[in-house]
Amino acid sequence: MATQSCLRKLMAPSTANHMGNVHGGNILRLCEEAGRIVATKYSLGQVALVGASQTQFHSPIHVGEVASVSATLDYVSRHAMRVSLKVEAEHLESGRTRETNSSNMWYSIIDVKPRADGMTGVEMIRGERPIHPLHPSLVAPDAASELKKNAASAARLPLSTRSPKEFPVTLQVTPDVDSISNHPFVSAGYVLKLMDEAGAVVAAAHTKHQCVTVLLDKVCFRTPIRLGDLCTVRAGVTYTSSRSVETVVQVWKTELPGGAEKEGCGSICAVEARFVFVALGDNGKVVEVPELPPDQRTIRWNAGAAKHEERVAEKARAKL
Amino acid sequence: MATQSCLRKLMAPSTANHMGNVHGGNILRLCEEAGRIVATKYSLGQVALVGASQTQFHSPIHVGEVASVSATLDYVSRHAMRVSLKVEAEHLESGRTRETNSSNMWYSIIDVKPRADGMTGVEMIRGERPIHPLHPSLVAPDAASELKKNAASAARLPLSTRSPKEFPVTLQVTPDVDSISNHPFVSAGYVLKLMDEAGAVVAAAHTKHQCVTVLLDKVCFRTPIRLGDLCTVRAGVTYTSSRSVETVVQVWKTELPGGAEKEGCGSICAVEARFVFVALGDNGKVVEVPELPPDQRTIRWNAGAAKHEERVAEKARAKL
Amino acid sequence: MATQSCLRKLMAPSTANHMGNVHGGNILRLCEEAGRIVATKYSLGQVALVGASQTQFHSPIHVGEVASVSATLDYVSRHAMRVSLKVEAEHLESGRTRETNSSNMWYSIIDVKPRADGMTGVEMIRGERPIHPLHPSLVAPDAASELKKNAASAARLPLSTRSPKEFPVTLQVTPDVDSISNHPFVSAGYVLKLMDEAGAVVAAAHTKHQCVTVLLDKVCFRTPIRLGDLCTVRAGVTYTSSRSVETVVQVWKTELPGGAEKEGCGSICAVEARFVFVALGDNGKVVEVPELPPDQRTIRWNAGAAKHEERVAEKARAKL
Repeated sequence: MATQSCLRKLMAPSTANHMGNVHGGNILRLCEEAGRIVATKYSLGQVALVGASQTQFHSPIHVGEVASVSATLDYVSRHAMRVSLKVEAEHLESGRTRETNSSNMWYSIIDVKPRADGMTGVEMIRGERPIHPLHPSLVAPDAASELKKNAASAARLPLSTRSPKEFPVTLQVTPDVDSISNHPFVSAGYVLKLMDEAGAVVAAAHTKHQCVTVLLDKVCFRTPIRLGDLCTVRAGVTYTSSRSVETVVQVWKTELPGGAEKEGCGSICAVEARFVFVALGDNGKVVEVPELPPDQRTIRWNAGAAKHEERVAEKARAKL
Repeated sequence: MATQSCLRKLMAPSTANHMGNVHGGNILRLCEEAGRIVATKYSLGQVALVGASQTQFHSPIHVGEVASVSATLDYVSRHAMRVSLKVEAEHLESGRTRETNSSNMWYSIIDVKPRADGMTGVEMIRGERPIHPLHPSLVAPDAASELKKNAASAARLPLSTRSPKEFPVTLQVTPDVDSISNHPFVSAGYVLKLMDEAGAVVAAAHTKHQCVTVLLDKVCFRTPIRLGDLCTVRAGVTYTSSRSVETVVQVWKTELPGGAEKEGCGSICAVEARFVFVALGDNGKVVEVPELPPDQRTIRWNAGAAKHEERVAEKARAKL
Repeated sequence: MATQSCLRKLMAPSTANHMGNVHGGNILRLCEEAGRIVATKYSLGQVALVGASQTQFHSPIHVGEVASVSATLDYVSRHAMRVSLKVEAEHLESGRTRETNSSNMWYSIIDVKPRADGMTGVEMIRGERPIHPLHPSLVAPDAASELKKNAASAARLPLSTRSPKEFPVTLQVTPDVDSISNHPFVSAGYVLKLMDEAGAVVAAAHTKHQCVTVLLDKVCFRTPIRLGDLCTVRAGVTYTSSRSVETVVQVWKTELPGGAEKEGCGSICAVEARFVFVALGDNGKVVEVPELPPDQRTIRWNAGAAKHEERVAEKARAKL
């Protein structure tokens, strides 16, 4: 069974953000697509993204370059697969390539069945068929501990995230047909792109500068989104260091028609993730970030600070 | 039942026209989507746009800004709902917002049924279920008279519009999958975008300058368009003032395969609307418009002049 | 029965390549759409592109211009139709039009049936219903010989093309929903756009300059591609003259899930074509092309040289 795959795509101008580089959200979408292909090939079933971790943006990709996403399956539990992703950009005229992104994405097998609530349409449920174990030589050493850590942090998720009032509405859309993949649900890649946009919006409003993504972490997909659902994306700044802005982004879905009469009733928090941005000055250099005022800090500030210190320590270790 | 909704979207470079601002057609598409959500939520049924009026473009939206469309249901008759729409643009770095557009859109409940003519596929027919009356405190005072006026002007529509030869073909396309919403018909928003493009093409050809939309009026959707139908968009300049160009735009649909052997047989005028443009010089300032030569004027010239004077008077009243 | 059709479209910024002109692939996609409409209207059945020949790019189309594609049916055999296509670009401010492209596209009637191998989904097979003969006055004199020549060259196709190892992977994608037309297969226009991109990538890597398409020839569609299939596009430089680069581009499809465990097993070469490019310097002028080193030449070098001389001779004849 195949455990590797690669997508290669020429980056067209329509993939650009308004600074002229490829939109971080489009890179996430490409990664999710590559990961889904490997997980589908290995499990021989339909799969859906359930989480992502350690997604890093090292360097921007420019329009006109070829992006290559290599996807390697490196961990399989009874019901989940981890795909490790590396993105490289190739400049055609010089022939130079550089690594621009990396991520780990987690997939589960799903079944698509008629809806249990008797409404028309289908629903996506976690498949029960176990996944074939991965050959031990292919297993990444860190994956099992990552799985455990993610499960633990999902359990510790502060209850406040169940309240839709934590952050103001940042973006609100109904996904269009372009957003679906080959089953009738909105692709996780589209959702990640939307969340990245929402995070960039609040980060830009806070810093008064354009912001680019450097890190995406702790993504947890709780329930799938259907074509035609209203997606309310709520984002807020939760932590600031001198050079970075941490945002938490949630996607609340409301099924239409009917839907929520009052917000909070019919809406479900479908996804939550943590995006870290840096702000760029007019010359494209990283600029200082204003501190989040104490009265706007929540329980998430300390978690953000801990995460930030962990990352600084990791970088220091990497330099040794 | 909810009578309000909001869409908020970051305007990506792919939404731009070739002057670098957000394409007026994309704004119309966003408005139609927001209006459809409110009408769907209120009526708990599938709805379709049947008309639009008083659509105004006050100021352009720039790529990189967040556009917010607020939609408020403010009138309900037995079979139609009016949604009033306001678009605001928010500049992220400065935090400034400004109103850029406003419109009233009319929706009816529809049913999607197997085709009456025995062909495969479905057709869209006006739903018979009456809509729940709106609480009197939410009813806009001008809506009932607008409904009456629209019905009257639809009856007065000159017969010449039934002839497909009135205007030359401006654009001709088959809508792609991206154009459909959640039922198998092309979304009204896509059609409005196409019409706006066609109007801009004839306005630019007349003025020899790039043109931007300032007003869209008298939209009447007579019959839905299916994915795969050939859309022939016919547009012509019907009136000119010193600073504006009025165009009338029609969408003729032809069903494929089979379709029209000779134009005019199998083609139906599905939509007609009136778009007003201003021409921009190289510095982005509004420039003078050459007068439409007398031999190119039709019965529509006088109607255009009356509309123009009405609008000038309204503006003068607004300034008092 | 109609034997002519026309598509007219305003070229939006999202159709541009990274030099700011309309992407050659988008022009091919528009041509294929126009050709499909005429063939559908004439045969009153579903049709698919089986080949294209003599596709030439005379001059670029700029963003903001209106592209008109006129399609004329000019040959019908028992199972194939040839549509001759001409593309004109119209500059709106000056009113000037110029011919920018021309092509001949071949279509066959197809039937869409449940899959013969018992898997879910449908397959596309060549329809058996004969096509109504074309009135002799409408038949193009060169079409019958082109049909014979294409059939002969398809038979002579070197066996090496059955090996997926001939060229390295250039692009690898899974087509998205936007790629399908009105039957559940990826439109030929989308595939041509993808191949054009892949050819431009290897041509740019060879010349160290941006490249634009001047000619597309010998396209042969062997089997349709489904939504969700993995498309591996393999391209290589096969011939160089002092001013042009010939590339051969193949699309290998792999059905997912299951798919190829080892490349070459489950993959089928669905399409092959020959694209010729010129390289542009920073001033937009055509620049000299470095010769392909002798050790990188294959059996295709001589075929490329013969084709090149034929084209030079044709141009000389045209000038007389």
